[in-house]
Amino acid sequence: MDLIKIPQWKDVLRAHERIGGWIHRTPVFTCRTINDITGNRIFFKCENFQKAGAFKFRGASNAVLALDNALAENGVATHSSGNHAAALALAARNRSIRAHIVMPETAPRVKREAVSSYGADISFCASTLEARECALEEVVKRTGATFVHPYDNFDVICGQATAAKELLENTGHLDVVMVPVGGGGLLSGTAISVVNMTQGTRVIAAEPKNADDACRSFKTGVLQPPLKPNTVADGLLTSLSSLTFGIIRRYVNDISCAGEESIIKAMRLIWERMKIIVEPSAAVPLAVILENPRLFRGNRIGIILTGGNADLDNLPF
Amino acid sequence: MDLIKIPQWKDVLRAHERIGGWIHRTPVFTCRTINDITGNRIFFKCENFQKAGAFKFRGASNAVLALDNALAENGVATHSSGNHAAALALAARNRSIRAHIVMPETAPRVKREAVSSYGADISFCASTLEARECALEEVVKRTGATFVHPYDNFDVICGQATAAKELLENTGHLDVVMVPVGGGGLLSGTAISVVNMTQGTRVIAAEPKNADDACRSFKTGVLQPPLKPNTVADGLLTSLSSLTFGIIRRYVNDISCAGEESIIKAMRLIWERMKIIVEPSAAVPLAVILENPRLFRGNRIGIILTGGNADLDNLPF
Repeated sequence: MDLIKIPQWKDVLRAHERIGGWIHRTPVFTCRTINDITGNRIFFKCENFQKAGAFKFRGASNAVLALDNALAENGVATHSSGNHAAALALAARNRSIRAHIVMPETAPRVKREAVSSYGADISFCASTLEARECALEEVVKRTGATFVHPYDNFDVICGQATAAKELLENTGHLDVVMVPVGGGGLLSGTAISVVNMTQGTRVIAAEPKNADDACRSFKTGVLQPPLKPNTVADGLLTSLSSLTFGIIRRYVNDISCAGEESIIKAMRLIWERMKIIVEPSAAVPLAVILENPRLFRGNRIGIILTGGNADLDNLPF
Repeated sequence: MDLIKIPQWKDVLRAHERIGGWIHRTPVFTCRTINDITGNRIFFKCENFQKAGAFKFRGASNAVLALDNALAENGVATHSSGNHAAALALAARNRSIRAHIVMPETAPRVKREAVSSYGADISFCASTLEARECALEEVVKRTGATFVHPYDNFDVICGQATAAKELLENTGHLDVVMVPVGGGGLLSGTAISVVNMTQGTRVIAAEPKNADDACRSFKTGVLQPPLKPNTVADGLLTSLSSLTFGIIRRYVNDISCAGEESIIKAMRLIWERMKIIVEPSAAVPLAVILENPRLFRGNRIGIILTGGNADLDNLPF
């Protein structure tokens, strides 16, 4: 029996209404050269231009705004060193509530600064998952804050779904919608929007070969543990949760993998030809297309460029 | 007696009609963080997204499309290692005529490739101005091609004027419009559009301190030679012509300079906060604002981000 509560279309619609005034409706870009190289018409949804630099702000905003006043008063909390932390910090500030962020001591300076610039409380911990969870538990106990998981969260998934919704509203029919997959929040939301807005549009997730646990889970039908993921796409190191895996098994058509070289090549292609900054994780769908030209040729493809928080001091090319 | 024929507003309108179907109407971006840092409302016209990666495609297209058929048959020619060469090559290809480009042997591989990818004939010469002009003369004599100067050209200036025209159409009233100045083609065109479309809007050019000949010419009223320009803003090494200087003296309010450190800082700010790629020259107006915060505070400012052809293998930061 499936006891997991899966977001319905009405939940996505409500999320979009709730966050519409807070998020950027990001533009959809096309690039003649990339179309010529791949033989497709690709529509890039530029979430690298989203507030706090990534689509994560959609889900974080929806989770924060969905809290009732009594709960909201105690603030929100999460453990993350990445885009979700900054997104939650900004979303909390927008509602004038506290955000408590647990970060590993090893988090890069630029990520700390982003989070603290939005006025969040930061606690540092050792960089193991155990230490993070322990530190988070302590923060939640002390403050009464609501834990907002980066993807294993109903409201977060509904928020992430609004990116594909806007994309499809802009482009009309697409043959394929592609997003990268890490924990599966964006992928789950995207699949829900595509299933409810289109007929026959395939949802294909893209994952680094060096962090292919979602792909293995999808192929085997059993949630697989990550095997020492090691990829330049550092936003995709996380693993599916039972919630996101349930949605993905039901609605996603395929998960394809790309090697590190292709990811870096795709990232550089986007920088050089589109003149926009995307982080490595955002380039994984294009990398999959570059590795499999014949599989994709001749299609109208939507890709969500997930974020633009690249470290300019450590470029992979 | 002023014998120089200065473009009139009707010439700009005709240029815009002529090139409208060939150019991108580039978007105007704003950035909350940069507004907060500078205390202004800044509207960035994103010519880094223009075809061939820079505003130069506007002027080159207008010059190519303005040729009568008999002249056009013999093609066009120029000497340049930069954005004008690629822009002219693409504009010529769009009209299915030849482009003959004289480039110094020292031109970076990426620039050669851009020009040859548009199907232009490239001749190489030594990297002195004399060698370039000599090689160009030979090409023109041999082919009958029309020389399209990167800025000392009536039609080129009319084409460049369309960027500010679109900017003002999008933003409504602006207190200040800022562009970088090298040879003065964009600045001349911008000034003509601003004078004809607005009342009381100031045009302020931005120049690297290390290549300040336009500023010195403007202050002294006499065309000054460049003094060994040496700046990261490699698109701004050229000098005003009598045509551009004549227009600039008449219509431009001021020329301000920025140091190398500010230019690099402004460039990085645009990359990190706006998530877009601009070349160093494009960052000079913001650098001037960063160096003179009190001079600008509280204004609605339009800036033309001139191009996005940055060398990713040689970033200045």
